[in-house]
Order: sequence, then structure tokens, then C-alpha cells
Amino acid sequence: MSANPRVCLAYSGGLDTSCILRWLIEEGYDVVCFLANVGQEEDWAEVERKALKIGAKKMIIEDLRKEFITELCFPAVQCNAIYEGRYLLGTSLARPVIARAQMRAAQREGCQYVSHGATGKGNDQVRFELAFYAIQPSIKIIAPWRDPKFFNRFAGRNDLLDYAAATGIPVTSTKAKPWSMDSNSAHCSYEAGVLEDPNHTPPADMWTMTVDPMNAPNEPEDITLHFEKGIPTKLITSEKEYTDPVELFDMLNKIGNKHGIGRIDIVENRFIGLKSRGCYDAPAMTILRAAHLDLEGLVLDGQVRSLRDQFVTHNWSILLYNGYYFSAEREFIENSLTFCQKRVNGEVRLRCYKGHPYILGRSSSTEKLYSAEEASMDSLQDFEPTDTTGFVAIQSIRLKKYGLQKADEGESLSRA
Amino acid sequence: MSANPRVCLAYSGGLDTSCILRWLIEEGYDVVCFLANVGQEEDWAEVERKALKIGAKKMIIEDLRKEFITELCFPAVQCNAIYEGRYLLGTSLARPVIARAQMRAAQREGCQYVSHGATGKGNDQVRFELAFYAIQPSIKIIAPWRDPKFFNRFAGRNDLLDYAAATGIPVTSTKAKPWSMDSNSAHCSYEAGVLEDPNHTPPADMWTMTVDPMNAPNEPEDITLHFEKGIPTKLITSEKEYTDPVELFDMLNKIGNKHGIGRIDIVENRFIGLKSRGCYDAPAMTILRAAHLDLEGLVLDGQVRSLRDQFVTHNWSILLYNGYYFSAEREFIENSLTFCQKRVNGEVRLRCYKGHPYILGRSSSTEKLYSAEEASMDSLQDFEPTDTTGFVAIQSIRLKKYGLQKADEGESLSRA
Amino acid sequence: MSANPRVCLAYSGGLDTSCILRWLIEEGYDVVCFLANVGQEEDWAEVERKALKIGAKKMIIEDLRKEFITELCFPAVQCNAIYEGRYLLGTSLARPVIARAQMRAAQREGCQYVSHGATGKGNDQVRFELAFYAIQPSIKIIAPWRDPKFFNRFAGRNDLLDYAAATGIPVTSTKAKPWSMDSNSAHCSYEAGVLEDPNHTPPADMWTMTVDPMNAPNEPEDITLHFEKGIPTKLITSEKEYTDPVELFDMLNKIGNKHGIGRIDIVENRFIGLKSRGCYDAPAMTILRAAHLDLEGLVLDGQVRSLRDQFVTHNWSILLYNGYYFSAEREFIENSLTFCQKRVNGEVRLRCYKGHPYILGRSSSTEKLYSAEEASMDSLQDFEPTDTTGFVAIQSIRLKKYGLQKADEGESLSRA
Amino acid sequence: MSANPRVCLAYSGGLDTSCILRWLIEEGYDVVCFLANVGQEEDWAEVERKALKIGAKKMIIEDLRKEFITELCFPAVQCNAIYEGRYLLGTSLARPVIARAQMRAAQREGCQYVSHGATGKGNDQVRFELAFYAIQPSIKIIAPWRDPKFFNRFAGRNDLLDYAAATGIPVTSTKAKPWSMDSNSAHCSYEAGVLEDPNHTPPADMWTMTVDPMNAPNEPEDITLHFEKGIPTKLITSEKEYTDPVELFDMLNKIGNKHGIGRIDIVENRFIGLKSRGCYDAPAMTILRAAHLDLEGLVLDGQVRSLRDQFVTHNWSILLYNGYYFSAEREFIENSLTFCQKRVNGEVRLRCYKGHPYILGRSSSTEKLYSAEEASMDSLQDFEPTDTTGFVAIQSIRLKKYGLQKADEGESLSRA
Repeated sequence: MSANPRVCLAYSGGLDTSCILRWLIEEGYDVVCFLANVGQEEDWAEVERKALKIGAKKMIIEDLRKEFITELCFPAVQCNAIYEGRYLLGTSLARPVIARAQMRAAQREGCQYVSHGATGKGNDQVRFELAFYAIQPSIKIIAPWRDPKFFNRFAGRNDLLDYAAATGIPVTSTKAKPWSMDSNSAHCSYEAGVLEDPNHTPPADMWTMTVDPMNAPNEPEDITLHFEKGIPTKLITSEKEYTDPVELFDMLNKIGNKHGIGRIDIVENRFIGLKSRGCYDAPAMTILRAAHLDLEGLVLDGQVRSLRDQFVTHNWSILLYNGYYFSAEREFIENSLTFCQKRVNGEVRLRCYKGHPYILGRSSSTEKLYSAEEASMDSLQDFEPTDTTGFVAIQSIRLKKYGLQKADEGESLSRA
Repeated sequence: MSANPRVCLAYSGGLDTSCILRWLIEEGYDVVCFLANVGQEEDWAEVERKALKIGAKKMIIEDLRKEFITELCFPAVQCNAIYEGRYLLGTSLARPVIARAQMRAAQREGCQYVSHGATGKGNDQVRFELAFYAIQPSIKIIAPWRDPKFFNRFAGRNDLLDYAAATGIPVTSTKAKPWSMDSNSAHCSYEAGVLEDPNHTPPADMWTMTVDPMNAPNEPEDITLHFEKGIPTKLITSEKEYTDPVELFDMLNKIGNKHGIGRIDIVENRFIGLKSRGCYDAPAMTILRAAHLDLEGLVLDGQVRSLRDQFVTHNWSILLYNGYYFSAEREFIENSLTFCQKRVNGEVRLRCYKGHPYILGRSSSTEKLYSAEEASMDSLQDFEPTDTTGFVAIQSIRLKKYGLQKADEGESLSRA
Repeated sequence: MSANPRVCLAYSGGLDTSCILRWLIEEGYDVVCFLANVGQEEDWAEVERKALKIGAKKMIIEDLRKEFITELCFPAVQCNAIYEGRYLLGTSLARPVIARAQMRAAQREGCQYVSHGATGKGNDQVRFELAFYAIQPSIKIIAPWRDPKFFNRFAGRNDLLDYAAATGIPVTSTKAKPWSMDSNSAHCSYEAGVLEDPNHTPPADMWTMTVDPMNAPNEPEDITLHFEKGIPTKLITSEKEYTDPVELFDMLNKIGNKHGIGRIDIVENRFIGLKSRGCYDAPAMTILRAAHLDLEGLVLDGQVRSLRDQFVTHNWSILLYNGYYFSAEREFIENSLTFCQKRVNGEVRLRCYKGHPYILGRSSSTEKLYSAEEASMDSLQDFEPTDTTGFVAIQSIRLKKYGLQKADEGESLSRA
Repeated sequence: MSANPRVCLAYSGGLDTSCILRWLIEEGYDVVCFLANVGQEEDWAEVERKALKIGAKKMIIEDLRKEFITELCFPAVQCNAIYEGRYLLGTSLARPVIARAQMRAAQREGCQYVSHGATGKGNDQVRFELAFYAIQPSIKIIAPWRDPKFFNRFAGRNDLLDYAAATGIPVTSTKAKPWSMDSNSAHCSYEAGVLEDPNHTPPADMWTMTVDPMNAPNEPEDITLHFEKGIPTKLITSEKEYTDPVELFDMLNKIGNKHGIGRIDIVENRFIGLKSRGCYDAPAMTILRAAHLDLEGLVLDGQVRSLRDQFVTHNWSILLYNGYYFSAEREFIENSLTFCQKRVNGEVRLRCYKGHPYILGRSSSTEKLYSAEEASMDSLQDFEPTDTTGFVAIQSIRLKKYGLQKADEGESLSRA
């Protein structure tokens, strides 16, 4: 090994990280490039060629799809995870597995530094760096987009193009899209550029993981999903069954893509306090969340569910969004999640049709909290209707006192 | 007035409450019938004729549509109210206005009693009675379906039909549907009968307020919704603008109906602890909730929103579902809701298409928390990228300590 | 066994349950009496003599002190459990172990019924019966104080005394105290009678487990408590060490008693919606809670602690108070509690003096989240003061936007 | 005005801020000094003399005691505010009023800058600066202890002393205490120095606002506190009544001081993620919190109270601790607080004795939720004991299902 300081760079093959790679070398670093396969489309060999051509000591590409899906996406499904009521956290879910693998690579390769191309206003820098620091508190981080030496030199895309031309970095001739994208198995995200106007409807050609619901087939497609302990274990389509997590997930992405399922367009609150507009298409996650949510209705105790919604779902989603996967509090919350999912066993039948998954029915062979007999208004087996009179009478004791107090004061109960 | 005890009965004109009306008279009561118009389809004159024919002293029919929509449905929209992640609370929202109006009628008519036809296992009995007791703690309630004298005599539908025949109660010749329904402006609910099997897909002819998404028009329909303080104030369609709350709401129901928007099929947890299967179609509420949720992303402070989601949305929804509208805690929570909605001003453009409303864009002329300039990754105006380095460094202090402690103990940070 | 129905009665030897025992026999039941030793003072042999004399088929007395302390009191300490900010839950903690043991006895003795002497307005009836039903859903419960046959016959204490005289039930000649009491290792409770006036200061001779702080020794007493996983494992006094849970707990009660520690006088909200006044002295629990709370400051991650306070402490306390020990939600929450206590290892030094335990210091040989070096304002090791500038700058982004918006509108930021 | 940039410095007269004042002048600033009177003991004239001698353009001293007590301390009492179960937030409460007054002064005096002497690891820097930025987003902040030019030059106390000697800054000859202090009407805080060892018992001569409980009078002192809408409105001692907020508060501090009430010694979690040890004595706040908490038991609806505890108390305390007074979320939460306190009217009698306030009784002439008659076990007026049977039966439906499911699986209900 040379005496140069050594840095492990998250390298995507794009213009930004190619320029960063070159610049780091200029700054005197030996650079090991790292790229995680979390399900995105990529010409992996081409990325490697490019990295080495620019001067990387090594290009490491790791297939993290299985750990991404089983360790992050599936817990998110168990959790019904959702940020601010709509965002399914696709990017946030990928960051922990990428950061962990990059740190493993950095340690293996003897790097004192890690680096990434995330910008200074985004969530990803925070997610990556909190993960890096938690995993190896002594690690040093180079964030060029927050380093004045870098960002003052490369003020815009043209500066990067000039630098690429000057240093022989190959640039694909395709014109940059007027938004930025990031994709993995869980979703593709679209932000910035024309999307910064929150009233600008996303262009039809933007979406990559879903067809337009208006162009989706007129024929619906029915599927069945099985869950054990809240984890999807089997997908049954009209043609085949899938039990391997990656295959199951990929197939759901295909089905969802075909039927235009999982588009989200929101203004969200970034961790650093800025509001930003983001669009996402997340076919598999959307279908899985709908199915899981539905099964819980059948099998999960109502009080556990309510506490879980308020505590686990709310907080787990925020923690993941903000980059706190590697934290004591995420472990604390996820422990609760795992515990309550012991009962989430059963299957859900869904219909995929023009933009959405519709529930057709659900059942469980092991869970017994639902009883058609007991729920039936017509059956009085094991039920004394008079009991409810007592129930209501006792529940009303407090309300009556309050009603009397308000009446005494001439106030109405109706509005606050 | 006669010396008989006097009861105000919630009367729908159906078989159950017709028999209850007759039975109450037999039991020696003078009965004043009450029926609220909360937007359901009804032959009002026919109901009145029937009540009087059976022997009611009076039939009171009140149009509560406006107070229902403005005092209950709109706060639910402000709240993004949802029960167990999916149910929009249509029935729960109607109960407080009905109970309040029925109590007003009972007081006006000098009734010592109120009565209703809700069954002993359901939520509605609790909702009605908690409301009655809170409004007038001294009121006495007759709940025939919990009175052994009644329910032992009328064990099933056939007993009611026999009684109707014997006492001259007119019965419509239409065959009863194999499920029960309850409708108002907010939704129509379907439960019991064939729906008690949670794996039985609802029959296509069941839904009354929405067409099947598969039969919805191939042409989408774009609309714009304006909100002030979280309240819908204007609906703009391609043809017309609506500002009257009832007209706006009705028009949204029409649009949603046409495009098959708002079907829900769930297993839910009733207040009394039973699980039951319910289906609901709620076109206007579904569209309004989607639009409101979206606007909040643009205009509501992120931390306020998070607190509101966890505290107000969660608890308000449960309180309404369980029948605690007339309570100190509902007032407490709704006060918070109203406060945070001061900022929810703006408009949302939506596309209604085959089952769902899609967001096209949103804007606000008064609210300024969103700034395209500041959100932009390309702009460094008023932003020092180096600040984020400090932000991350400080946020990581605690995580590093935790990471060190775990590493010392040879444990991985990855899983709980 | 006789053909009579068989009931297992919670029997205390007092006037109420003695009359209930006799009455049940009159009603045709064979009665097995059950009494749990949860640390109260009792002449056990005398209770047995009395039960058999009145006609019980059997008197079962079980020593539950160890399971009470280790399975209920210690988790309460781990949880910092407290109801409505002050009550340490002594009675609520005892009910689950008593109910469970009584059900075991009922099952062993072939009883189809269980019975108890709890009154119809209190919490205990609910706690006992929810436990009975959860443990054996088919069990039948006889609650004489809610049975008109019983409560109409025995309208007051004099009726019971007459009945006792008439049926030869021995009555102790001591005059009844003008309040009711219930004691166990965790506390003694005092309510009803003169205490029903919430402005009536409890009489000095009421308290049984604590001396008046004004009569406590002028000399303080210093002790040390060790915790492992949040559980008290060692008590060190100036004279001796205690590691056996029951001995440790009893010794803390003695020390607390001597120094007048643990008196509570409150108006609380009962589960059934009534407010009631209760007084409690809880020496050991008060000392243990103070010590545990203190140790957590040193060793527990701050975010975990905050989530635990809001979720676990709040809800576990309410669930126990309301009688939901044997429930899915208590298991769900307690699982979280156990998880977060893994780190609560260390020792706390306390001074017991005239009414309260004072913290003298705390330490942990295994936990490392606290670092005097890092906390020190004087040390800049591993700390860049400039980082905080970035931290504050980023945290202020959102606040500045809000401040600007309010300023634009001419509103002050100061008050809501 | 000179052309120099102008800074408003929070000046205490101590060594640190005196050196900062001198250094700022050296750096070319015109300095206006600001000192808030929030109840601390101070030789105000001497501070002014010193500031002007060192070179301040002006010394502004403002008496903020009334706004501090009424706008911050009293809402904290309404809230039962407490951080991490023990800290009454004294310093946190003072920061908003100080920062607001300092910003008013800065604006009046035409300052482009504000400055303070808070250190880089503490909470106060964050509290001050978030307030400054929210109030005037364009303000520029000079934090010398985070400015390398300053902190590299003044690495320790000796450097400051040398600088003082060299520049003629008068230094009091008293030896610095081996801890740092900050006092106001709400409390005095002690941290750093010898206290950094969390197992080091605070020295007896450290505490300034309370005598040692062991030296407190043997005679207790009884007082009565009146509240209106949760705000203390009258203090009655054996000698006099106090209704002026500042006088009432000061008198409580005197009484508490005399009886040794309000000492706290904890390890807490600072906002920036470090744990630190802090000691506080807070006599008035301790007494007021105890009284308010007690009164709420009598007059506040139980469900409102539970929601308030979990939502308002928890979050308000954290927000204040972290410096988010001037934020949308604090306004949101405080609005809820104010609302629920409408009912908190009444009086509490307390006994102050050797370290703690004991409740003697409470009453309210306006609030009626408590009824001795209804709470009484002996009275059946307006209460049907049989109702509770129905109540329990319905509450047990869900628990029975769960019990059956677990029994079927051979699992015990007892432990998670």
C-alpha cells in the first residue's frame, strides 16, 4: 500500500462522483470505489471500467439485494412504515445497508476515510454519515459537496463537465434529465429541477418503475400474499408461486409496474428543516403494505395495534427517514415491532388494477381473534346483550359529570 | 299530554324500528318518532306516513346535512381522521349530530325516554347512548335489542315479520339484502350477513355510492379544491365552482361515485372488543382527505405535523369511533386541531380516475414555509453547506458512544 | 365431592368475606377459601380456623411474596411505574398474582365459580375479574356486592353484624376504623370513610407502614442499591448486605418505615370514571423508584429513555391500574421494558432522612454512555466547538422560516 | 454612531464575559452590554461600572422578573413540567425571556450582532441562538467559545486571568468555586468541576437557595395555595397573603429555602447528545408543582389528564429544555395546555417540612367532577352495582379471546 491516505468512495459512475473520484486523487488520496447493488438498473461492468480508468485503486461492487429486502424492506412492511402519511421510505431504507457494506469495504481495504457525493441540503448525507459514525466512531468523512475547496470550484454542472473534459472523464452523451433520480428495489425517487415547483405536475416520461395508470391493462390481475410473523413468505400469481424474498419482491415490482401501482407525489419535511417536493414510485412496497395492513385487521389485537400505530409505526418511520437506523432507539422500537408481529400470520387476496391494489379477502389458519360467529349481530352465543347496558352505564359516569358541570355553566358540549 | 311515559324513538321506517315502535306502544309508551336527514336517500313522506300509521304520536324529520358536514365531516378532514389506518369514520361522524338532534327533540316533546334500534354487539348503541347521557345525564334509555323482554320475543327476522303481519305494519316486499347497510353523506356502510366471512369478496351489486372502478370512465376528471384553515371552501370542476359546504360535498360524492373512488373493505376492532368486517364507500371524504393531507405537506410546519399525527389524528379518530364526541377529551383534542389548522390555506389540483384521486399539484398564496429556492440542491443562497457538517457531527455524538459500547461488547449494531 | 356447585372464594377473615362465605353456603355452594400472602400482616392460623368454623370445605393459604416482588414489583421499578404522577400502584401490582393463584386453586379444587368481596364501585373487582376471565374464559364469577340478592339484604355494616351474630360468625371486638385498608409488601392503602372528604388531612394514627416524618430519627441512614438490568440485586446497609429479593424488599420497607418514607395522599381517577381519594404508604417502592430513576440518568440512552417514558411508563402504569395485566397489550409493552433495561446496570447511594430518600451519587462499572471527560466544558478532546455552530444553524432553518412568516403577519412569537 | 459593527453582548460581570467584552472591542466592535434581572442576586451597579470601565458603549439592565415568572414559570407549573422525571427546567425557562429582551435591546441599539459567553458543549448556546434566529432570522451571532480565534487563545482560566491583568479588567479576589453556577428566581444550577464525577456527593456549602434539610427547622410550616386556571393566584401563610406573582413566588422561595425544599441531583441528557451531571435547588417551583399536581387530581377530567401527561407535559418539557420556545410546535402544545387548565381552580393546603412539601388537603368551590357521595363505597345513589358486571363482561371479551388463543398454544399469559 502507498503512504497516501486511503478513502473509500461511494461511486455511482455518474458525473458527480466521477469528478469527486478524480478530485480526491488530485488531493492525494488513494481511492477505493464502492457501489452497492440494491436493485437498481446498472451496467456494472461499465461502472467498474470507468472507475479504474479515472484512477481508482479498486472498484468494489456488492450485491446487497437480499439483505436490503429482508433486513430493511420487510421490517418496513411489518411496521406499515410511512413518513408523513404517504412516503414509503424507499431511499431511507437503502441507506443503512449501503453504509454498512461501504464501511465493511473501507475496513477491509484499510481506508481511514469514507466519502460520498450527497449534497449539503439533503437527507442522504445525514443518513450515510450517522451510519458511518455509529459503525466506526473513528472514521473520517470527506463530503466534497460541503467542502468549500470543492463546492467553490465546482459551482454548477458546467464546471463539472469542463473538469471531466479536461481530465478525460468519459461523459455519456445523453442529456441530463431536468430532475434527479435514485432507484433501488423499493422505489425510484425523483426530485429537484422542474419538480421544485410543487404545482408542476410530474412529466409523464419521468416515472420509471410504473406505467401510467391510464395506460395500465384493462384486465385486473389477482394475486395472493402469505405472511408469517408479518413477513411476506409467499406470492401466488395465476402462473406461479414465489417464496424467495428477492424473487417475490421483484415479481411484485413487475406486477405493480404493469398496473401502475405505487406513485406518490408529495411535499415532505426534510430532517434539516427544509420542505422539499419528492415523487416516488414504489410498486412492491405499496402492494405489500396494503396487504399487511389488511391482514393485521384480522389477526392483531386491537389495543396492541393502536399502541403499535402510535408508538412503533410513527417513530420507526421518522427514525429511518432521519438516518437513525444504527441507534439505540431504533433497536428499542424494532424489538417491539418484532414482538407484536408474532401473530401476523395469514394470507390476503388482492386485485391489482389501474393504479391500486384492492383487497378481495383475507384469512388465517392459525389466528383466532376473529370469529364470524361472535361478530354476528344475529348470534347471541356467549353474549349477554344486557352486559352492554352496564358497559355503557359505567362508561358514561364520567361523561355525565362533565355534562352536568358544563350545563351548570350554561356551556354547550358541542364545540371546543 | 297523556299520562303515559313518553319516548323519543330513532325511527328509520325499516322493519326493526317499525316493530320497536309498535312494541313500545304496546308497552304503554307514547312514542315520538325522530329521523335525521344526514344525507341518506329516503322517501321521507313515506316514513312519516308509516310511523303515524303504526301509532306514533308524531314523526319529526330534521335536515342535519349542513351541521353534519360542517361540524363533523370537515373537522375529520382537518384531522386526516382515519381509524386503524383505513376507515374514514362515516357512521361515527353522523352519530353525534343525530344524537344531539334527537335529544333536542326529546326535550322539546317532553320525553323522559329515548330509544333506538341499535343492536347489542355494535358500536352504534354505545355512540348514541354516551351522547344521550352526556347531553342529558338524567335521560332514560330504552334499548330493545338489549332488553330480554324484546330480544327473547323477537329472536330473528321471521319473528319480526310475523309481528309486523299480525299488527298491520306494512312491510316492503323487497327481499332483504344479505348484509346490513347504513348511509349518510359521508359514506355507506355494509356489514353482517355474507360479509361476516372476511374472505368473501363483497358482491359487485353491494356498493351504492361508487361504481366499480373497472366500470368507471376511461376519461379522468380534474378538479381543484381550496382550503382555508384546513376547511374545504371551494371546489372547482371543469364546469362550475362550489362553495356551499353541502353542495361542495354532494358534488364530490357525485364525482367520486362516477370514478369509483373511496371503497374500503376491512376487518376492524369494535369498541366492545369484537373484531368485525366492514365495507364502506366514502367518495367525498376520500377525495377531501387526500387533498388535505397533500396541502399540509406544503404549508404545515414539520414538527407540528408530527405531533399532530401522533396525538390529534390518532386520538380524535379513536374517540369518534368509540362514541366519545361529547367528552372533555374530544374538546381538548379538537382545540389542538383547530389551532394547527390556521396555516392550512391553499389549493390542491387532483385527477379522479378509476378508483382513486391523484395529486397533480398544490400551491398556497399565503403560506411561506416552502421555498423552491431554498429547497433547491443547486442554490446555496442563505445556506452554508459546512453547517451540515457540524449538524451531523453533533447528532452523531450520542450514536458514537452507543456504537463504541456495543463494539466493546462484541455486538453488532444491525439488528435488535 | 358433593353435587353442589363449587366456588373458590377470596377470603380474608374479615367481616365482609366471612358473611359472604356463610351466604354462599346458604345459597347451596361448596366453598373453598383462598387467601394469598402478599406480605400483609395476618394471623394465618386464625383465618383458617375461622373459615373452617363458618363452613368452608377448605382454606388454602399461599405464600406469593416472592412472585409478587419479582414478577410485579420489580418490573414496576424497572418501569418507574407511577399512576397520575404519584401513585406507585401497590394494590394494582398485587392483584394479578393473587388472581392467578386463586384461579390455580380453583382449577385444582374443581371449582366452576370464583368469588370475591370487592365492592361495585372500586377498581379491584375489575382487576380480579379481568384476570379471571383472561386466565380461564369459561370461569363463572360471583360478585356478591353486585348481586341484588346480596346487596339488598346487606345494606350496611349493621346488617352484616346482625347476620354474623345470627349465624355464629366470630367478630373481633375491635371497633372498625373509619376508613378501609389493604396492605401488601408494596404498600398499605387507605380510603373511604373520613378520607372521602379530600380536604380532610389523614389522621396521624392511620398510617401503618411509615412513621410520621416528624417523628423519624434525626440521624439519616445511608444505603447503597445495586441494579442489574434494572432489577434491584443488592442492598447494602451499614450493617449487612441483602440479595434475596424478598429480604431486600422487606429490609427497604423497614428502613423506609423508620424514616417515614413513601406517604402519598391523592385524588385519583378510578377506571370506572369516578374520582376517589386514596392514601398510600409505600416505603420500599418509593426508595427503589428513586434509585432506579437516578441510575437510568447515568446509563440509559437519552432517546430510548424519552420514548420509554412516553410509551412504556405511561401505558404500563395505566394498564396495571385498570387491571389489564393478563392482556396482549401488557405483554407488548413489557417486552419493550425488558429490552431497554439491559443497560440499567450500576449502583446508587442514597440517604434516607425524614420522609424522603436523597441521592448521594451513582456509578456503573459496565456502562459507558456517561463520560466526565466528554461532558466537561473544559475539555475539547474529540470535540470541535465549531460543529455546534453548524448544528444550531441547521436546527434554526425551520424556526427562521416560521419567525419570518409570523413577522410578515405582524404576530409575535411569544405566546400561543 | 461609529462605523464599527455593533454587537449586543449578554454580559454578567464575570471573568468570561468581561474578557469577551474586551476581546470584542479589540476585534473592532462597538459593544452594548445587556444583563437581565431574572431574580438572581447581583450588584447591578457594580456590573454596570465594570462594563463601562472595560469599554462598553452602554450597559442595559432590565428587570424581567415578572415576565419570567408569569410567562414561563407559571406555564411550567400548569404543565407540571419536568425533564427526564426530575429536572424542573429552571435555566431553560429563563432563556426565552432573556433572549427576547436581549434581541429587543439589540434592535433598539442598532446592533447587527448579538454575542454570549455560553460554552460550546452546553444547552444554553442552543437555547439562546435558536431564540435569536427565530426572533430575527437575519441576526448575526458571535459565540466566542466556538470561535477558534477566541478559544485557541484562551485555553483555560489562567489565560483569561492573564488577559484580564494585561488589559486592566478588574477581577474579584474571591477564589473561583470548583463548579459553575447560574441562578434565577426558578432555581440555582450547579455543574462542572467536582460535580463531573457523578458519584461525588455535592459539597454541603454548594447549595445557595436551600438549607440542608438536616438543618431545616423542626417545626413544619403550613401554607395554602390558590390556583385559577392552573395559575397560582394566592399564597396564604400564617402571617400574610400574597397575590402579586413576583411576591408570591419570592415568598415561596423563602419558605422553601428555610425548609430545605427542592434539591435535585441528576445525570441528564443534554440536547447535543452528551450526558452531564447537574444539581439544582428550586424551592418555589418544587412547592408549586406539588400543589398543582395535587389539585389536578381533584378537578381535571381523568382522560384529559392522561392525554395531557403523555402529550403536553412530555413534549413541552423537552421543547423548553432543548431551546424550542420560539417555535410553531411550542405554540401548538401550549395552546393545548392553556385549554385544559380552564378547570384547574381550587386550593391546596401544604406542609413544608425538612426537604419536602406534604399535601394536607385540597378543595375547589367551582369544580364538581369529584363527589364524595358518588365515590363512597357505601352509597348506591345513582349507581347500579350490576352495571359493573356488564362493564367487566364487555371489557373481557377481547381478553378472553386472547387467553383462549394462548391456552390453545400452550403458552402462559403471565410473562411476555
